[in-house]
Amino acid sequence: MTRSEQFSHTSFQAALVSLSLDRASALPLHQQLTEALRDLVLSGRAPAGARLPSSRQLAQELSVSRVTTLTALEQLVAEGYLETRRGAGTFVAHDLPRAAPAVGAPADLPAPQPPQPYAPLSPAIPDLAGFPHADWARHLERAWRAPEPGLLARPDPLGWPPLRAAIAAHLEGWRGLRCAPAQVIITSGASESFDLIARALFAPGDTVAIEDPAFPPMRHALTRAGLALHPLRVDAEGLPVDALPARMRGAVVTPSRSYPLGTTLPLPRRLALLDHAARAGAWVIEDDYDSEFRYTGQPLPALASLDHAGRVIYVGSFSKTLSPALRLGYMVAPPRALPLLQQAIAAAGPRASLVPQPALAAFMAQGGFATHLRRMRRLYAERQRALIHALAPLADLLQVAPDPAGMHLVCPLTPACPLGDHDIARRAARAGLGLRALSAYFDGPEAPQGLVLGYAGFNADTLRDAAATLAAILRHP
Amino acid sequence: MTRSEQFSHTSFQAALVSLSLDRASALPLHQQLTEALRDLVLSGRAPAGARLPSSRQLAQELSVSRVTTLTALEQLVAEGYLETRRGAGTFVAHDLPRAAPAVGAPADLPAPQPPQPYAPLSPAIPDLAGFPHADWARHLERAWRAPEPGLLARPDPLGWPPLRAAIAAHLEGWRGLRCAPAQVIITSGASESFDLIARALFAPGDTVAIEDPAFPPMRHALTRAGLALHPLRVDAEGLPVDALPARMRGAVVTPSRSYPLGTTLPLPRRLALLDHAARAGAWVIEDDYDSEFRYTGQPLPALASLDHAGRVIYVGSFSKTLSPALRLGYMVAPPRALPLLQQAIAAAGPRASLVPQPALAAFMAQGGFATHLRRMRRLYAERQRALIHALAPLADLLQVAPDPAGMHLVCPLTPACPLGDHDIARRAARAGLGLRALSAYFDGPEAPQGLVLGYAGFNADTLRDAAATLAAILRHP
Repeated sequence: MTRSEQFSHTSFQAALVSLSLDRASALPLHQQLTEALRDLVLSGRAPAGARLPSSRQLAQELSVSRVTTLTALEQLVAEGYLETRRGAGTFVAHDLPRAAPAVGAPADLPAPQPPQPYAPLSPAIPDLAGFPHADWARHLERAWRAPEPGLLARPDPLGWPPLRAAIAAHLEGWRGLRCAPAQVIITSGASESFDLIARALFAPGDTVAIEDPAFPPMRHALTRAGLALHPLRVDAEGLPVDALPARMRGAVVTPSRSYPLGTTLPLPRRLALLDHAARAGAWVIEDDYDSEFRYTGQPLPALASLDHAGRVIYVGSFSKTLSPALRLGYMVAPPRALPLLQQAIAAAGPRASLVPQPALAAFMAQGGFATHLRRMRRLYAERQRALIHALAPLADLLQVAPDPAGMHLVCPLTPACPLGDHDIARRAARAGLGLRALSAYFDGPEAPQGLVLGYAGFNADTLRDAAATLAAILRHP
Repeated sequence: MTRSEQFSHTSFQAALVSLSLDRASALPLHQQLTEALRDLVLSGRAPAGARLPSSRQLAQELSVSRVTTLTALEQLVAEGYLETRRGAGTFVAHDLPRAAPAVGAPADLPAPQPPQPYAPLSPAIPDLAGFPHADWARHLERAWRAPEPGLLARPDPLGWPPLRAAIAAHLEGWRGLRCAPAQVIITSGASESFDLIARALFAPGDTVAIEDPAFPPMRHALTRAGLALHPLRVDAEGLPVDALPARMRGAVVTPSRSYPLGTTLPLPRRLALLDHAARAGAWVIEDDYDSEFRYTGQPLPALASLDHAGRVIYVGSFSKTLSPALRLGYMVAPPRALPLLQQAIAAAGPRASLVPQPALAAFMAQGGFATHLRRMRRLYAERQRALIHALAPLADLLQVAPDPAGMHLVCPLTPACPLGDHDIARRAARAGLGLRALSAYFDGPEAPQGLVLGYAGFNADTLRDAAATLAAILRHP
């Protein structure tokens, strides 16, 4: 026995004797003893090979019953921390780590910070203060206080049926899209929808046309799935349908408002797109991301409403109409795509929580959602005007024009602007602004320079201050 | 004009005149007219090239103002359904589909069925009637009625910080695992955790050892990610650690209870596994799926609590401890894996809804979760006894033995059993039972024959009836 081993043994005996068990604790004594002994082993104070007192001795020293010490020792033998040698007693097992530092020093990790407010001018953020919290909390409470039997049953992986029906009704009224509730699939948002579509309807290597510019996370989801993306630069009327590849297996489009530019795909192009898809046997994914918010004129009905060949999958979300915190989105699939999507969901397991679904179904069925959308539409129209007003002094650097719809403005840089859009976005981020560089949405060369400025989630004061900060960046680079 | 075209035109004029607008509707008249005319075009009753009455004539015929008809006609021209020819009037546009059958005949799709109760003997189903609904509904209502600012801010993609702290505290008390809240990542369940781990920590083609048998959805998630799985048949002590491939990049293990057999990996194998992983630079994924439910003896602390090299990712879930409807799970990652997992979540977008997170954090912090677990532990122990009792008459066909933990029994078939386990599972499914064939969990050859019988989610009466149904299947095949 080396000196340090001897010291260890002494320290072990001392530790053993000084073990204190809490008789007032709810934890049984044998369990307390098991844990204390295990700690001694794992902390290295009980070195490998050290002999333990017998269960009888230990019971005497600790003033507990022998059942308590026997139970604890047997448990630790079963766990492998201790070993018995016939006739010789109980020993700390070999093959144990000598010292047990805390796992990766977790104590050094700072606690997670409370979430920070969205940075002003971040696009795609709804007004969260205007969310009807009291209503929503009441719907949550009612749905779950004494849940109806279906909520405690095996969840339908496609979503809570009343919510699917409520979404079908919403789409008919707001997007001119008639569909059966059975065609509506609830997901945890557009990202999951894209993941599922990529996996269910395509094989790696399939050619899928997308718009350029496009929503970067959508591009990432399809790339991750191994699809061969074929970006087509949008023109003044949106996706150049004539340029669609003949052998495409799919196309992802934003016909209501090309993202982020806001161009509406006119009817002849819509029909040509559907025709091309039908002939190619391709799927068309319609990403209808913010068309509930149209301020002047009427929206064209969803592309899916023109789909007589059953090739369009419509993708929607509550992230922009209600809150990104819900993590609820949906797809409307033609009957022939339903079994494929259903299979993909069953294989991966559903992601959408059931908790908000009955509350949202009731909120929609009772008209709360439509009322909220109309309120937000008025509010966002005002906020767009406020932002345009606040940007007026920058007219020499930014082209600012009203947009009949949406939650953000796209403002091209004028030739007089002293900075590129990436540079502006970087400086703006440092100044606490969430605006984006327009060119970041583009894939191909010669991306136009501009700023994407979200206004929906920010009140007039915040927008005015943000515009002033932006002015300072542009005027004094 | 052919006869059928003439008929169409006549029918169109008739349809136009008989258009009825609802003056009591909340929808403005011009919008009603727009929709009615669009329907006529899309349904084919207004054939391409058909001339419309002038806005003045239409206004007279429908007894509405001319502003109404002008607005509607202009909208439809803008949408491309109608076209004007200078001096000649307004016509239904060409390039429109002649007939517009309903999209994939949605009306033919039956409405989604209400979710059905879980089939008796389904494994991994908790007691949902025993879920503390009133408490839970109150927590939901409180959290969202007047949400604290952090709930309306940019959500942390790793989860609501108070929930991460509550999970860290739970793991220390229940699983002997000390970790910092910053190491806890909230997901929508174990499936998403496996997806993220596969993407964040491995590259396609990486060798990952898994147990055989194993949880099939886990196997699917890793296969989908392109990993090269290396299944190792478990023996009486669980994973044969000596057989781990030298070049493995990872291993997915169930050390607390090998799935579905329930074997506990003894300490020497745990240490050897960690040692092997550290030398191979591999990640160890610990799937700790139901260890809160131990009825006799004490659980070994989580494998992750022994991990001094920072190589273990601990995967847990609330699907079995509370409800699969929550869609909430978590990972505990060593500091070096955190940035990789964080990046993967940011790229794919988070899936876990924020709605249940503050309610669950409060439920855990106030002790409701621990109380619930203790109640369920007592209940499940009783139910296991009830199932064993109910299966006693089948002792010649099924080996039934108590299990010190878990939510299901694994019962090997005796040589006298007249049917194979797949055959039994098929017949049982037809009879409304949710039991599983043991061999279905195996990947390699010579899978043992047996039944996996879930008891946690079903009361004693249901278990008795289910055992009787099973007896009928086995006795009179």
